[in-house]
Order: sequence, then structure tokens, then C-alpha cells
Amino acid sequence: MPATLNSVAAAAGVSTSTASRALSGHPAVLPSTRARVEAAAVALRYQPNRMASALRTRRTGLIGLVVNNLRTATFHTIAETLQEWAAEEEYEVLVCTTGGDPAREAAFLQTVRQHRFDGVVVAGTGANSELVNTLVQEGQAVVTMNREVPGALAPSVMSAYETAARVATGHLLELGHVRIAAIEGPPDITSGRLHHAGFTGALADAGVPLHEDLVRRGDFTPDFGRAAATELLALPEPPTAVLISNHEASFGALPVIGDGPLQVPAQLSVICTEDEPFYAWWAPPLTTVDNRAGLLARRAAELLLEQLTGPVGDRPVQRVELVAPELVERGSTAPPR
Amino acid sequence: MPATLNSVAAAAGVSTSTASRALSGHPAVLPSTRARVEAAAVALRYQPNRMASALRTRRTGLIGLVVNNLRTATFHTIAETLQEWAAEEEYEVLVCTTGGDPAREAAFLQTVRQHRFDGVVVAGTGANSELVNTLVQEGQAVVTMNREVPGALAPSVMSAYETAARVATGHLLELGHVRIAAIEGPPDITSGRLHHAGFTGALADAGVPLHEDLVRRGDFTPDFGRAAATELLALPEPPTAVLISNHEASFGALPVIGDGPLQVPAQLSVICTEDEPFYAWWAPPLTTVDNRAGLLARRAAELLLEQLTGPVGDRPVQRVELVAPELVERGSTAPPR
Repeated sequence: MPATLNSVAAAAGVSTSTASRALSGHPAVLPSTRARVEAAAVALRYQPNRMASALRTRRTGLIGLVVNNLRTATFHTIAETLQEWAAEEEYEVLVCTTGGDPAREAAFLQTVRQHRFDGVVVAGTGANSELVNTLVQEGQAVVTMNREVPGALAPSVMSAYETAARVATGHLLELGHVRIAAIEGPPDITSGRLHHAGFTGALADAGVPLHEDLVRRGDFTPDFGRAAATELLALPEPPTAVLISNHEASFGALPVIGDGPLQVPAQLSVICTEDEPFYAWWAPPLTTVDNRAGLLARRAAELLLEQLTGPVGDRPVQRVELVAPELVERGSTAPPR
Repeated sequence: MPATLNSVAAAAGVSTSTASRALSGHPAVLPSTRARVEAAAVALRYQPNRMASALRTRRTGLIGLVVNNLRTATFHTIAETLQEWAAEEEYEVLVCTTGGDPAREAAFLQTVRQHRFDGVVVAGTGANSELVNTLVQEGQAVVTMNREVPGALAPSVMSAYETAARVATGHLLELGHVRIAAIEGPPDITSGRLHHAGFTGALADAGVPLHEDLVRRGDFTPDFGRAAATELLALPEPPTAVLISNHEASFGALPVIGDGPLQVPAQLSVICTEDEPFYAWWAPPLTTVDNRAGLLARRAAELLLEQLTGPVGDRPVQRVELVAPELVERGSTAPPR
């Protein structure tokens, strides 16, 4: 049992309210009384109950972060970058991973609400906009990132998905490819839509026809990536280049490509958007368009801090920031034969 | 501002204590009164304050998990496995990553304590045994895992590091290697010590001499792995096989080996302990001794649940469980030429 304020007061021979005032530095307490109370608190290993004090001060020092998974570099880079920022700012980040389940995300957002965290960063499913807005309206600091939460009233930091797809496609076009395949996210998710828009836009701008049979759109899963790569490699006329738009699909597609009949990059160029440490260690090392997850997280932290330190009652400005991606040329792309 | 119980009571035209009894299902409240209070609570979007109720019931539904990082498969597999377990058991896992800093770990353990989490899983630095024991003594459910916390009074789940090193070394010996290098963790960390004991023990049992210049022991960092691999490959007589004992070092060592002059596995066999998805996608796919992080996490969850559901006041039994590793043969090991 932790010591209570009552037991500290009893040990010091003062009332509970005097003990409370002594420990909180109230000026109306005699120095000798304060010393006696402090000695009793140390002897009893008294810990002021931060939950109880949060009820009064509305300051728990806790920031929530919800992510879909911790496997992919984007998510664990976001988590680690926010933790480092928080350590400097004397906040603590508590991370919840949901497996992409909106119900588990909602349960965590309720915890954030009920335990009165000071703020929350939502890099999650894109669902739960109502709950996100409740948190905003109740005065919590809220930032959404990585995936759009349609209708959310909080500032947002996003990867420039369309730009990433344009940069990747442009790189392949410059090398001379015209039969370019794409393994993309689903059309009902913002990033999937924007990536597709960037891919098709870059082709159109270059006057290169889109081959519908070379485009595979589906879930952010290794299974989808595996199936898509298998189908593309089995085509009578396979592509000369493939663009893979997310980590999860790449985890399934890359082993299929590595084991497949086409040599990379001599017979098949491969480019991924998002980045992942092991991309640099693949054979050959993978050319990528890095989404700069660390920079995304630092901008999210800054937008959160603005709210945490701004005037109480100010609603956050609803705005979307885009973080520009960066082409990282490695060994997996080359001109077609 | 969230609605308070007072405002619900005022809206329903009853006293605060009647409103409280109505919402908690107290039998002494008239059905018509209960209906009025419930309607007011819904209209005002009243949320019972779970922090306040935790002060009475000591049940927050929160489990803490502290890990050194979220980059390596061992840690993110532990985090995701515990989250899945928790979702089934109606707990929430809040994860803190510390960068291996004992002070940040201590700050999180204080949060766990002060916010009265129901339990905590410590897969951290191995420091903070005093704080871990304070949590145990205060009645929290505590499990340590992955790295020993010397002196901790909580049950513990560990990888069988010595067995892992013996299995890996035995595999190389069976293939006929006698010049075997090892890139290992530091000697002052349990896993580093045990791995070294397993490696040297397996060599001794086989009557194969240990070449001191082939053993590199150092930090769990890519930098250390990179330096160690560079030195080993530059030896006048390089090893015919190398055993890499942790993810972090492998992240530095593998690119050096991949870019180096020796062909894997024809001129150099490579085996890693612990497992990591990309090990299977390396060229050639890496033979590993899998530490089965998911199984580790499930055993930790079970030991935690025993404490969460056991009689209050029962101290956890201080015991260490070892999870046996598994050899996964892929393409990076072969007989020496």
C-alpha cells in the first residue's frame, strides 16, 4: 500500500490540509512544520497521487499516440521520434497499436479522454472522426497524421502521397520505361487514391499509356503484395518496371520478385515509396521515395506543442501540412533492356 | 469542457448523490428518476471520470509495457502480441520506448505507479530493479522479460540465450566449420554473457579451439556490428563462418558482409540469433536461430494475468521461465570450401 497524505499528516502530527499545503510549497506554512512534513513524506515514501492532482490541474503530462502497427518503419519511426521529443519536453508518450481495428482505436481514444491525457497524435485507421472531434472540443491537443481522418477538426501532417508517386513514376519514365506496373493501396483510402492520381498523372503528362492490367490496387498487407507480384510476373508480357507504394505490400511482393525469373534491375526495375532500413540491404539495394517519417513526426510534435502551450480555449487551426518526399537512388532501377 | 456529474444532476433536477446513484445502478433510485438522469447524461455527453473512479476501485484497465526500442522485431513483436492479448482480456497496453535510457524507463515506471496502472511488463534496460520492486510491493502485477532485472522480485520470461548460441554454433560445427567468428553483445549484460558461454561451450564440447581474434563483443548497435564485421573481413585469415547474436549489430554487420569480398555461403556462412522478417528476404535468405518473441510475449501475458486475477495481496512468485529457440535453416550457411 502506498502511503497516503493522511498517514503523512498523522506521522508529522499536523492536519491533512496543513500537510498538503506544506508539500505544495504554500507560503502560510511555518518552515519547521514544512520540514517535519517533508521528513514524514520521505520516511513513508509518500508519492503525491498524480491522478488526483490531475483532476484539479488538468495536467497529466501524458500524450497518447495511436498507430495501426509497429512493424513498419513509418510507424515505429513516428513512435520513436515522438518519444524523443516528449522526453525533451517532459511529456511521456504512451503508444497504442490497434492492428488497424477502428474499435480498438476508439477504446484507446476513450482512455485518452477519460484519463485526461494532455494530447493525442492519431496516426491510425482514419475512422473515429467523431471521437477525435470530441477530444478537440473538450480542449485536448490533437494532431492527426499519416492517414486522413475525414472531417476531423484538428491540424494534420501528411505525406505528399501524390508527389511521391509522381517522383517515383518520373524516375522510371526518365530511365525509359513505358510498361510500368504499380502495386498500390486501396482506392477508398486517401493515400491509395492520391498515389494512383500521382502515378496516372505522371504517365499522362509524359504521354505514356496506362496499362490497366499492370495496376493492382488492394489492402496494405503482405498477402496482397504477394498476390499482386505473382500475377504481374505471370503476365504474357510482364512489366519492365514496378512501383510498390507501401511497406506492407512490399513485404509480400519483394520475396516473390527476388525468387522470380526476372533479374533486378537488368530485366525488372523496382522502386518503393516509403522507406524501410532493410530496403538498403536488399540485393540489389532498393531505390525508394522516402516519405521522411521522422520529419512527419517532428512536425506533428510541433503542431501538438502549439496547442499544449497556447492559450486555453483556443481551438486548433484545422489545416493540412504536406511533407515532401525524397528520391533515394540505389541499385534496383536501371534503363530497360 | 466535459460535462460534470454536477451539471447532469442540475439538468435532471436531482442532487449530485442521486445522479451518481442513478448512473451506477443503485437499487434505491426510482425508475423515473434514473431515466431522467440518464437522459441528461446522454444530452450533456457526460463521461464518468475514470481517474476519479480508479481512486476508489484501483482498477484502471491499463497495462504498461516498456521496451528499449521499437525498431527490432523482438520488441515490436512483443508490443503487438501483448496488445492483441490485452484486447481480448479487455485491458489496454500503453507502450513506452526509452532508447535504452534507464532514466526514461524510471520516469515511465513512475507514471505506471502514480496513475495506478493494473500492471506492467518490463522488457527494458535491466536497471531500475528498486522501482520494479516498489511496484511489486505496492501490489501491481509485474513481469520482467527479455533482459534480466537483477534482484527483481517479479516473475520473468527470458530467451534461452545460451541454448540459442549453442544451437547456432552446433549448426556451423556440423557443417564442418572450425574458424567460426562471433559478433556478440557486451559481457556486462546477461544475454551477452550467456551467448558467449553457449558459443564457447559448444566449441569446447566439440574440441574445436576458440580463436580469440574471431570474437567481437560490444554494444547492441549497428555501429558496433559494422565495425566488427569490417575488422573480421580484414583479417589475414578471415573466418569461414560468422555468428551474429543480435538484431542491432546485424543491421550494421550485414550490409558490410553483403558488400564484402566473400561470397555467402560459398566463402562465408552467416547465421543470426533472434529473427527478423527481412532476414528471410536477404540474398541469400539468412539462417537464424529464432528467439520466438511472440511466444515470449504470450508467456509474459499469462504470468501477468495470473497476478491480475489472483487473490489480492499474494506476492508474485519470483521465477524465471526460459523460452527455447528454434533453428530456421535458410540459404546463408553451407559447408566450408
